Amino acid sequence: MRIVCLDLEGVLIPEIWIAFSEASGIPELRRTTRDEPDYDKLMRFRLDLLRKRGLRLRDIQAVINTMEPLDGAWEFLRSLRERTQVIILSDTFEQFAKPLMAKLDYPTLFCNTLVVDPDGTVSDYRLRQKEGKMHAVMALKSINLEIFAAGDSFNDLAMIRQADGGCLFRAPTTIQNSCQDLACVQTYDELLAQIDSFLSAKAVGPANGGRIG
Amino acid sequence: MRIVCLDLEGVLIPEIWIAFSEASGIPELRRTTRDEPDYDKLMRFRLDLLRKRGLRLRDIQAVINTMEPLDGAWEFLRSLRERTQVIILSDTFEQFAKPLMAKLDYPTLFCNTLVVDPDGTVSDYRLRQKEGKMHAVMALKSINLEIFAAGDSFNDLAMIRQADGGCLFRAPTTIQNSCQDLACVQTYDELLAQIDSFLSAKAVGPANGGRIG
Repeated sequence: MRIVCLDLEGVLIPEIWIAFSEASGIPELRRTTRDEPDYDKLMRFRLDLLRKRGLRLRDIQAVINTMEPLDGAWEFLRSLRERTQVIILSDTFEQFAKPLMAKLDYPTLFCNTLVVDPDGTVSDYRLRQKEGKMHAVMALKSINLEIFAAGDSFNDLAMIRQADGGCLFRAPTTIQNSCQDLACVQTYDELLAQIDSFLSAKAVGPANGGRIG
Repeated sequence: MRIVCLDLEGVLIPEIWIAFSEASGIPELRRTTRDEPDYDKLMRFRLDLLRKRGLRLRDIQAVINTMEPLDGAWEFLRSLRERTQVIILSDTFEQFAKPLMAKLDYPTLFCNTLVVDPDGTVSDYRLRQKEGKMHAVMALKSINLEIFAAGDSFNDLAMIRQADGGCLFRAPTTIQNSCQDLACVQTYDELLAQIDSFLSAKAVGPANGGRIG
């Protein structure tokens, strides 16, 4: 059985922190790992800022609910789910992604989790595991699923390399240049064509006999 | 991150072979592993019968397309996907399930695959792996997902036992009697209550520090 694993931000929805920074009018939230390479420090900075502004999870979700998936993402994902199974692999947090996942008709998402106090304050976060995307692909391959993976960022490369097939989608030039062996497509139609080619490739080995595979 | 793995037939949709037997007027297709314990023999009998009747995949899917999910299944699944991530684990074949998955808004499904000739004849089948449901739960646990599993049949027990939580749904009395340590619920509301209890249970261990978990 062949399935597709997709990155979320930059592929189906905008970068959540950047869009949230704009929608909420808090420019400091644009800070990324390019500015603060220590992810834990960056997250504590973000959570402190949310707390200082008195923004609870409900407020944050209300802002995220004003965002929309990328143009054409709904139609692309619908076409893809008519063809095959899809799992979204993301480093975002399930509570942040939720309003946007609703707008995409709830594809399955593996990601991280915020710790929310009873009063709605976001007090902490939990990473599911390090290199979560790559390990997810490894786990899915271990149960005889064949994986096509696509994403736009450095944190997608290990996932794509681990998969049976894959490509970059709207990746920055720096990434394209450092990964010239990977195709990089710009439109959903091109991405669907890459996936169709993967899905329709002839199975390796004899197909008969109800054999495992 | 906590997710839910669900059996398909008997939980969200009717038993496909039985419903197909009725919808197509081919009573021999009611034969199950109770009548022919050798699954490979049973599948060859079924595929031979389809071939003899001249039924190609398109014809079979047209019949399956007249079937409906179980009463209340769409609403249940929608509520569940608003709460958490869902993966359907089934021993059915992706091509058979497809028309019904469309009616359920395409939840993610891991199952088996039919081998279809270019003329549309179903010539063979591929099992993804033996004990596929149980191994899927093990693989998902290996990437730090916590799993609640539910199903109605003997082939769901290993999956439920392997999961972090779970229950039976509308299981026959024989199964209920042999698994008295497992709750067995009859309605979707009761199943949602079981799942809500699992999802809201306090995480084990300290939650602070962005720690892995």
